[in-house]
Amino acid sequence: MTDLPSLRLRPKADAQRIRHGHPWAYLDDVVADRRSRALAPGSLAVLEDAERSPLGLAAVNMGSRIAARMLDRDPAAIIDARWIETRLRVAAQLRDRLYDAPFYRLIHAEADGLPGVVIDRFGDIAVLQPNAAWADLRADDFATALQALGLRHVLLNASGRARTSEGLDDASRWLAGGVDAPVEVPMNGAIYLADLTGGQKTGLFYDQRPNHAFVARLAEGARVLDVFSHVGGFALAALAAGATEATAIDGSAPALDLALGGARAMGRSLITRKGDAFAQMAALAEDGETYDLVVADPPAFAPAKPALTAGLRAYERVAKLAAPLVAPGGTLTLCSCSHAAELTKFRAACIRGIGRAGRQAQLIRTGFAGPDHPVHPQLAESGYLKALTFRLLP
Amino acid sequence: MTDLPSLRLRPKADAQRIRHGHPWAYLDDVVADRRSRALAPGSLAVLEDAERSPLGLAAVNMGSRIAARMLDRDPAAIIDARWIETRLRVAAQLRDRLYDAPFYRLIHAEADGLPGVVIDRFGDIAVLQPNAAWADLRADDFATALQALGLRHVLLNASGRARTSEGLDDASRWLAGGVDAPVEVPMNGAIYLADLTGGQKTGLFYDQRPNHAFVARLAEGARVLDVFSHVGGFALAALAAGATEATAIDGSAPALDLALGGARAMGRSLITRKGDAFAQMAALAEDGETYDLVVADPPAFAPAKPALTAGLRAYERVAKLAAPLVAPGGTLTLCSCSHAAELTKFRAACIRGIGRAGRQAQLIRTGFAGPDHPVHPQLAESGYLKALTFRLLP
Repeated sequence: MTDLPSLRLRPKADAQRIRHGHPWAYLDDVVADRRSRALAPGSLAVLEDAERSPLGLAAVNMGSRIAARMLDRDPAAIIDARWIETRLRVAAQLRDRLYDAPFYRLIHAEADGLPGVVIDRFGDIAVLQPNAAWADLRADDFATALQALGLRHVLLNASGRARTSEGLDDASRWLAGGVDAPVEVPMNGAIYLADLTGGQKTGLFYDQRPNHAFVARLAEGARVLDVFSHVGGFALAALAAGATEATAIDGSAPALDLALGGARAMGRSLITRKGDAFAQMAALAEDGETYDLVVADPPAFAPAKPALTAGLRAYERVAKLAAPLVAPGGTLTLCSCSHAAELTKFRAACIRGIGRAGRQAQLIRTGFAGPDHPVHPQLAESGYLKALTFRLLP
Repeated sequence: MTDLPSLRLRPKADAQRIRHGHPWAYLDDVVADRRSRALAPGSLAVLEDAERSPLGLAAVNMGSRIAARMLDRDPAAIIDARWIETRLRVAAQLRDRLYDAPFYRLIHAEADGLPGVVIDRFGDIAVLQPNAAWADLRADDFATALQALGLRHVLLNASGRARTSEGLDDASRWLAGGVDAPVEVPMNGAIYLADLTGGQKTGLFYDQRPNHAFVARLAEGARVLDVFSHVGGFALAALAAGATEATAIDGSAPALDLALGGARAMGRSLITRKGDAFAQMAALAEDGETYDLVVADPPAFAPAKPALTAGLRAYERVAKLAAPLVAPGGTLTLCSCSHAAELTKFRAACIRGIGRAGRQAQLIRTGFAGPDHPVHPQLAESGYLKALTFRLLP
């Protein structure tokens, strides 16, 4: 018997869904009486169905739309550093099999059994994003568990947008060790610089790794244009794979500086153009410039449903501006990290844009986030990242 | 001016769709008068909109649901061996950039500008599938064009199911050269045997190449089970990448013989089990066998809409029978080559099957056919091949 409080589903709630592995109970699903409302955000409770049969151990936040996040099917589980360490080891086992070097997303939230938690690994540095109250409360347990896995430095990154809806602050801090300088990150044969404590969130995104790799396969002897380049994701991978020349466009000077630093560490040069990507693309077209490989990986134009129509128009505009910059027979890779713009709609917007630029195309690849960004089977629509590579015919 | 006959769209037909690049006019879209009905299957005509503005040069088959297939935007184009050769060279340019050796799908129909035509390349051998009347009539032009590209042997493979609806025969024959023995095909570091003139269609399918490669990345030191193995696609790629042991299950003795021949050519051994895959999986579960990597790549259970419900149930059953064979922390890769079972439905069927086997999973990769199987932008739903890799949690 456990002495934890219980949180009960309402009779109309779908308990089967949770039994089948769905990791959430929404606020509408649970009995919100005085007792349950008094549960502190991030506290633990035994989630029960309407007939009081236990479903498992959950983290509670009655101030959030997601009132309960399932932590363990065993209602008597003890959620401590050891428990966290076990989940980390299961996750690390997959990543260490996939990658030569310990640079990857170690924990991708629900799919890795740690709801609301993201951890990126940069060698012996962990960047922890506890984006749910239960994890924020237990940040020190996470640090202990990460150190047990051999990581020496643990940064709590509190910039996640989801933290606001969980009632959490935005104060980032080192929980163990500390590193000031940008970190060198080896990926796809390139070297990237990640500024972990600067303004660029986790400093580097691992999710595009397989999409970088595919573009790099086409890069030998190519001229490459990387629009919305951030720290040079596609451009540096292409240079590492034998591109003769690469140009990175971004609005952020610090991001372009890191891209240049990465190129320097690889002994290569990189052309950078700081400014609005739309205006830069138009200017290059005006000059009659063309490239063998063009990539555009813009910020999320349609992060949520209300922004969908405008977002799809923006994606279409990116495609229409980028297509004229592609040499005959070259490729155009268009990416979206918008949750709301699902694959079919995003693809249609890209195809419209390419068509309006007067180009004929074939779609040669549809890619998603890499395998260190697993998807929870009950949240399978949550695959947010799409990367489409079109070949524009001669 | 051309002296070709014209084929006119009916006023209600969507001419814009074709102007925007859609490669087909359906029988319902065109004026079917005595004159147009008299056009021989596979003959050429200038496709016109209802106002008699030319849309381009099309191949006609009034006996097919697809009455016109657009060949060229230029109504005056000459469709001969030179024209075909140009399209082949555009297609080969992409493939030669992607692959170290000339073993790939050279032409993937509409997406490569050759409607209804599939050509697989095995070194200096081409296997041509002219699955539309216009191409069947011009098979010798295709052979000439392929020889101009340096291919010495050209096999016309007439086993395609689509040929029936085009009114074509099923008589395969060599158009140039001729090869009797199975061909060694290098792919992902493995060696496969393709029997081009035997009963197994084109002898080998290139579409799973990136999915083989992903499973192979997980294979070092692993025990592997390849269900519906055909000539050993996943099993041999895994052995090449360091799997300690691989078992192939298939109902076809000739396919398993080719798989064994491939393993022998690699200096490795392979365990084969001939029989019904469902029964074989149940028997292995009965014996308590588990594997680090399990793959099931069944034939199309839902090739068309009427078979969808039964097909999805069959995919669910495959998942339910395969999941118990996966060791804790191992992976299960489930494939579908059914047009009608689109990604969302196929994924849901797999997730149900894994859940009913009592296993918790994370989806680590969604893969499609490789880039030598491009998709026409106006036929983007036609991506038929799906490969999902789940990790089954400890």
